Amino acid sequence: MSAENKIAELGLELPPPPPPGGIYQPVVIAGNIAYVSGHGPLKNDGAYITGRVGRELDLADGQAAARQTGLALLSTIRQQLGSLDRVRRLLKTLALVNSTDDFTQQPQVINGFSELFRDVFGEENGVGARSALGTSVLPGNIPVEIELILEIEP
Amino acid sequence: MSAENKIAELGLELPPPPPPGGIYQPVVIAGNIAYVSGHGPLKNDGAYITGRVGRELDLADGQAAARQTGLALLSTIRQQLGSLDRVRRLLKTLALVNSTDDFTQQPQVINGFSELFRDVFGEENGVGARSALGTSVLPGNIPVEIELILEIEP
Amino acid sequence: MSAENKIAELGLELPPPPPPGGIYQPVVIAGNIAYVSGHGPLKNDGAYITGRVGRELDLADGQAAARQTGLALLSTIRQQLGSLDRVRRLLKTLALVNSTDDFTQQPQVINGFSELFRDVFGEENGVGARSALGTSVLPGNIPVEIELILEIEP
Repeated sequence: MSAENKIAELGLELPPPPPPGGIYQPVVIAGNIAYVSGHGPLKNDGAYITGRVGRELDLADGQAAARQTGLALLSTIRQQLGSLDRVRRLLKTLALVNSTDDFTQQPQVINGFSELFRDVFGEENGVGARSALGTSVLPGNIPVEIELILEIEP
Repeated sequence: MSAENKIAELGLELPPPPPPGGIYQPVVIAGNIAYVSGHGPLKNDGAYITGRVGRELDLADGQAAARQTGLALLSTIRQQLGSLDRVRRLLKTLALVNSTDDFTQQPQVINGFSELFRDVFGEENGVGARSALGTSVLPGNIPVEIELILEIEP
Repeated sequence: MSAENKIAELGLELPPPPPPGGIYQPVVIAGNIAYVSGHGPLKNDGAYITGRVGRELDLADGQAAARQTGLALLSTIRQQLGSLDRVRRLLKTLALVNSTDDFTQQPQVINGFSELFRDVFGEENGVGARSALGTSVLPGNIPVEIELILEIEP
């Protein structure tokens, strides 16, 4: 099943593509590789989820934020590529979790994103290489920031 | 206008290429892709700007440090590629800001770098995909560290 | 000398390939590029080294953890590629050190990894571009996390 059909089947609602938060392109394409800029958990109302995991947010909140970041990424990818069906596969994910010093479940948080991409693009093409890391602070106090490298139809 | 001509026109002074700070290459080239190692704000006198943004440094200081990091990157790129005119475009930037827990304007800090690269390489080729992230500590207490992926003339 | 022969000559013992710690692939290959997921310092007994550098761990401990992370990466690469001899060269390393606020020798810590890869793959192919960064927290309180981009025999 195509990714666009899967979005419909799952009844996923994508937020608007995030407006640029600085001097950068949301996606840059070189041949069949797409570099996707860092995204945060933009909600459908255009506001961001905020807070630090381990303080205002718990593990489940963090997972929901990671999933919402994935929805924002899908929105950008669809807008920039014309269709999610141009994505061949997810190659690499770099994910940062805004964490207290003693919160160490970053991989479980980022699974909220990874489950979404697996559901949309399938086990073979939607699960890539990944690093899930913690940090003490992220832009605008978002809990999660995720960037991607994709293989696409050129 | 070529990037080298632009450097001259803008009267930009580049610091010396940073000496290796560990066991790595400043730039590695694979086909038409150049991977550029993490750089900090090396000044023309060979010393680094230091300090945490939100504590010793404010937003404007951070932006100046990001711009200086860009100048150090240009110096390395020129030395390693022979000329800045071999750069076709900036594909991807990963930028970390050494931040206090409550300083959340990392994208605005990194705009100091991104404006420089836009000025030198132009709107089309000098603005790439980007992630701007915060962290609690960087090597030698530098305020900013930036790595790049470039498309180049092979 | 081939990397596999070098492993034997140096008498290096590799830990078991780390089991997946989330929803991701250990390695994803696109053409002659291999994206290797973030790894931590898995020991031969299957447990991870833990602790923050600057608190429980000192510089030498951190270097040993970076080296052990390199051994875990070699184990994964061998398993996923069939042989280390399929690696042409290390292109890029992104390395994070779980650090106290005032520990700023992240490059020296990560040299523990870089020396290992230089020894195994040689000066020309085992030393790539690199960023060494600090952070306040990593998954499971590991001291070091490292991801790689490799050029391989396709």
